[in-house]
Amino acid sequence: MELNDGMRGPLMPIGGAEDKFGNRTILRRFTELAGGSAARIAIIPTASAVDDAGQRYKGIFLELGAESADVIFVGDRDDANSDVLVSLIEQSTGIFMTGGNQLRVASILGGTRISDMLRRRSQQGIPIAGTSAGASVMSSVMVAGGKSGTTPRPNSAAMSPGLGLIDTMIIDQHFRERDRVGRLVTMVSYNPGLLGLGIDEDTAALITADGTLEVLGRGSVLVVDGTHMRSDIYASQGKHPLTIENVVIHFVAEGARFDLTHRKVLSTR
Amino acid sequence: MELNDGMRGPLMPIGGAEDKFGNRTILRRFTELAGGSAARIAIIPTASAVDDAGQRYKGIFLELGAESADVIFVGDRDDANSDVLVSLIEQSTGIFMTGGNQLRVASILGGTRISDMLRRRSQQGIPIAGTSAGASVMSSVMVAGGKSGTTPRPNSAAMSPGLGLIDTMIIDQHFRERDRVGRLVTMVSYNPGLLGLGIDEDTAALITADGTLEVLGRGSVLVVDGTHMRSDIYASQGKHPLTIENVVIHFVAEGARFDLTHRKVLSTR
Repeated sequence: MELNDGMRGPLMPIGGAEDKFGNRTILRRFTELAGGSAARIAIIPTASAVDDAGQRYKGIFLELGAESADVIFVGDRDDANSDVLVSLIEQSTGIFMTGGNQLRVASILGGTRISDMLRRRSQQGIPIAGTSAGASVMSSVMVAGGKSGTTPRPNSAAMSPGLGLIDTMIIDQHFRERDRVGRLVTMVSYNPGLLGLGIDEDTAALITADGTLEVLGRGSVLVVDGTHMRSDIYASQGKHPLTIENVVIHFVAEGARFDLTHRKVLSTR
Repeated sequence: MELNDGMRGPLMPIGGAEDKFGNRTILRRFTELAGGSAARIAIIPTASAVDDAGQRYKGIFLELGAESADVIFVGDRDDANSDVLVSLIEQSTGIFMTGGNQLRVASILGGTRISDMLRRRSQQGIPIAGTSAGASVMSSVMVAGGKSGTTPRPNSAAMSPGLGLIDTMIIDQHFRERDRVGRLVTMVSYNPGLLGLGIDEDTAALITADGTLEVLGRGSVLVVDGTHMRSDIYASQGKHPLTIENVVIHFVAEGARFDLTHRKVLSTR
């Protein structure tokens, strides 16, 4: 498995509901990655229909010592082509995407100058984090919706094109909390070349360009490796349960790292 | 828009039902691209559940003057990791994927050595053609299924991960014949950065690494450019008709070429 050609900056998908009041491990680590006291963070609240979705994060990043934190209000496709907003992202040292609805993000940003700039900044080494919808939208093929439950069924997952910051995985979130094992395995069965990542709440997967994934936070990351998988997805429809054999699952918790190239756990504390 | 990093060989998605008895313009052109009398063509019939799907093409490519044509029977994921079959593809000068079910292809080949070899051969400059399901499966995000009709609706299209030979477009086929305008526009609305290609039967889009698309055959290729599109896809569900404004459509017929980078028709005969 290869990461995106040209991927250089770390990506940090977060499973949603990350700690905002306690030690704030995840948001603190992101602030450090973005440069600590020199960090200029651009917050993209487009996933949310609520106007002040970004303001709360602005306050937190400033409390955590960032030099600046700007909310980039991208409400429509004109905003997403605006000189001022594009240049705020160009000058940032870290980009954070809030939660909400990943279809809003992809359908508003897709094909705009901001979408191009996000990819360029990532290729230039800048860290990009996203929580919940902001995590799922990072990949080329993303989860668009689906149903809860452990049983894989064709109708348990809908997919659509994301922002393409990484093209080797599909990222699901609120994972344990919303019981999304079935839909993640179903998505991987459509193309077992993609790794499935299921990230719990208050948990993050820090993915670096050397092909490692480090877990931060209170829960764990479930990795679905379909290398040896066989399924009848191509012959099934609707809610009919799928037969899928040889699904390899890894649970990776804080302190452990996962080798994305060789698909194995590297170390535990 | 950038083509895949590293894309070098031409891709030729075909809309299905290409002429097999007359002048065979499309299959003849592919044979020439693969080296004419020196062509060694590997035929991948995995989209089809029928055993002899590849045999008919073998006969045609030999009649059209290819040096050799081998049917690569990949029926399951073990076959897709077989040394013998992988090396047949490695030694081929052109690869042809038959029609059938694109979910079969992606779920069987995804993450296997044959899938890796297809990408590598494309990067090495070898032409890859595919008809119907073999056309749709080329892209990173592909059409998995959907409904006919001109009206875009959320439930008119299902998407899933394809083989990733090209990541800047979604390819639909049997386009005019099966009335698929609505589903193609719907798919583009999910991420207007992707170009939508709707290819009629007995029609092919020859895409080269310089970013041009040339049309061959009896019908035309409908291109959906979502650059200036706005939609309410993120707020809609099920069969509710979508509101989508500023969809730019191009119809490109034989003899004309389309500039994929600047999204405009380059020339007509």
